[in-house]
Amino acid sequence: MAKIAIMGFGTVGGGVAKVLEMNQAQIAAAVGEEVSLKYILDVRDLSGTPYASQGIHDFSIIENDPEVEVVVECIGGAKVALDFTRRALQAGKHVVTSNKELVATHGKELLSIAKVRGVNYLFEASVGGGIPVLRPLFQELAANQIEEIVGILNGTTNYILNRMVKGGISFADALKEAQANGYAEKDPTADVEGIDACRKICILSDLAWGREVSPDLVSAEGISSIHLHDVSIAAAAGYRIKLLGRAFRLDDGRQCAYVAPHLVPESCPLAMVDDVFNAIMVRGNAVGDVMFYGRGAGALPTASAVLSDVMDAVRSRDKRRSLGWSQSAQLLDAAEVEARWYLRGSFSPADAAAVLDGPESIGEGAVITAPMNFARAKEAAEKLGAVAMLRVL
Amino acid sequence: MAKIAIMGFGTVGGGVAKVLEMNQAQIAAAVGEEVSLKYILDVRDLSGTPYASQGIHDFSIIENDPEVEVVVECIGGAKVALDFTRRALQAGKHVVTSNKELVATHGKELLSIAKVRGVNYLFEASVGGGIPVLRPLFQELAANQIEEIVGILNGTTNYILNRMVKGGISFADALKEAQANGYAEKDPTADVEGIDACRKICILSDLAWGREVSPDLVSAEGISSIHLHDVSIAAAAGYRIKLLGRAFRLDDGRQCAYVAPHLVPESCPLAMVDDVFNAIMVRGNAVGDVMFYGRGAGALPTASAVLSDVMDAVRSRDKRRSLGWSQSAQLLDAAEVEARWYLRGSFSPADAAAVLDGPESIGEGAVITAPMNFARAKEAAEKLGAVAMLRVL
Repeated sequence: MAKIAIMGFGTVGGGVAKVLEMNQAQIAAAVGEEVSLKYILDVRDLSGTPYASQGIHDFSIIENDPEVEVVVECIGGAKVALDFTRRALQAGKHVVTSNKELVATHGKELLSIAKVRGVNYLFEASVGGGIPVLRPLFQELAANQIEEIVGILNGTTNYILNRMVKGGISFADALKEAQANGYAEKDPTADVEGIDACRKICILSDLAWGREVSPDLVSAEGISSIHLHDVSIAAAAGYRIKLLGRAFRLDDGRQCAYVAPHLVPESCPLAMVDDVFNAIMVRGNAVGDVMFYGRGAGALPTASAVLSDVMDAVRSRDKRRSLGWSQSAQLLDAAEVEARWYLRGSFSPADAAAVLDGPESIGEGAVITAPMNFARAKEAAEKLGAVAMLRVL
Repeated sequence: MAKIAIMGFGTVGGGVAKVLEMNQAQIAAAVGEEVSLKYILDVRDLSGTPYASQGIHDFSIIENDPEVEVVVECIGGAKVALDFTRRALQAGKHVVTSNKELVATHGKELLSIAKVRGVNYLFEASVGGGIPVLRPLFQELAANQIEEIVGILNGTTNYILNRMVKGGISFADALKEAQANGYAEKDPTADVEGIDACRKICILSDLAWGREVSPDLVSAEGISSIHLHDVSIAAAAGYRIKLLGRAFRLDDGRQCAYVAPHLVPESCPLAMVDDVFNAIMVRGNAVGDVMFYGRGAGALPTASAVLSDVMDAVRSRDKRRSLGWSQSAQLLDAAEVEARWYLRGSFSPADAAAVLDGPESIGEGAVITAPMNFARAKEAAEKLGAVAMLRVL
């Protein structure tokens, strides 16, 4: 029997306990032994709940109990979670988490502690919730050189954009609706400003190319300034506006990662990802494009990914996954990357043609440019008095 | 250094050799040692090719060479491939394959030989080509009870249906085009009659629920009788016609698997899978719906999956994957499953309403019924003189 502990008993922690109970027999059969929940560490008092006998308030009980093999960190943030994760790894315990902030900012250090101690630090649930994507990157797609990753990494913003497209309502109203439905937090900044998606594209880059990409160095633009008018023009021209995280590697070894809203052509499978769903497209030099789609958040989907990591840790307890990333990546500024741009203003097709090389008109006062970098697009936008400027995938 | 042998040097075998060469450094770094191709077994003479020094004609060379750890079977079919696979496993070698016919018909036996000999028999490439889907089923989704699997499992038929939808051409013309483009074989029976998709849904069922589902017992209907007229009516009503393999488990433990063309609503991500792409949707009781999308065939994508299995076999050479299925599943006949049905004939809405409970009219002489089993739908179709009858997803 393998004993585990959960730290932090909010949405994800509660989901992990619930799925562990619900699928106990299934999990035991797959692992070859029972997986049992010994402790739940939380500031709250769990007496009076079904978890009364497992509830504890003192981390050192977990740290000092040699029976606990795997610790599930669902605390969130990068303060207490960082301290407890370090100590759990140092105590020789495998740690599993869905904490993207911690992995994106301290993953390198935590993976190197895990390596020294011969244990695993696993975080499938940190990107794409329940969608298998990190393990496929280093396992099922391991025979490929990864060329590019592009994905809808945040369900809240996808829900809001979808409501703007299909409901014809403004960003502000769609956000209110998302909050009312529990899809957006009271302070929605991390979601709507692209901070959450930025952490995730960093983790994907770290794993795909083995070099650390720090969120601080990655430009992230959110969706709070997307106008309904642009959503409509794009839709009429066969595009959906999506918030994408994108990362790729150049032939010279430099990498680029950024988060920004894009016009996505309807022929791209990412365009059809609706509601709170996430999807991540990975391009490998042998496999071509593969896409992983599913629920990017929620208690049970996230618990599905957390528990698959727990099961992996137990099954391979004597064999560490050679997972990790080391020196920092050489980054190319996203502003240097050539892209086609959507510009909208009160200019005429003739105005646009005077400033741009062969602009494609896609609506009144709206064009898509030929590929160019940010500075050139910005300059053209200023000359034309454009009020909206977005990348095109 | 790990030495491997390829048996059968056609499209897939050639792709494996090519990707192994192309991504040598990548693969060595991920495995922790070099993976080197020692033999290529083929009836053809490879002298004069870059593989002259590896070419052999006698299987016993591989069988008797203790240096060969992994054998890649790309022979196809279930005769020679079966014999050589049995013997390779019995000789204590891991075997990796993309041969869906062999896995679907003899997987149980081959996996049990592998178990006895303490080696792996791996076949990620047998379903969905390069798309990671089998390993996610028993690994990343292992904390779930799998409820249902439904997928576009055959690229040839998806290409043909897509050309009918978008090009407005008949099945016969689309098939000719597919053959001209190398997407369909000279004898297209296995693809267009659903035999290939049937093998794949059997393998998915075997793995998802651990009980053998024999292709002989699974009803498979192809697309050769799909009329362009039905494609158009469906499109106008917001549906795409797709050939789906579908499998699910009932609460009483019985399973059902079948292959048939379906009307798929455009809101379902499977509807948007175009060209030769495949997509497999898996529903787990924790994760909900996840979908895996990519190229379901082709030399390099298939080689990507084959090599990920080779790498897994090498990395876990001392630890066998507990993979396998045993006794036969208790099967529910697909005809017993209630479905909504599309019926088309020269009947009027009043005719339909007289025979059916609340039919939904979706075009002239075309309705979608309430859920009912095959026999009841067939009876209604006969009363109405319907000339087309298709399932609705």
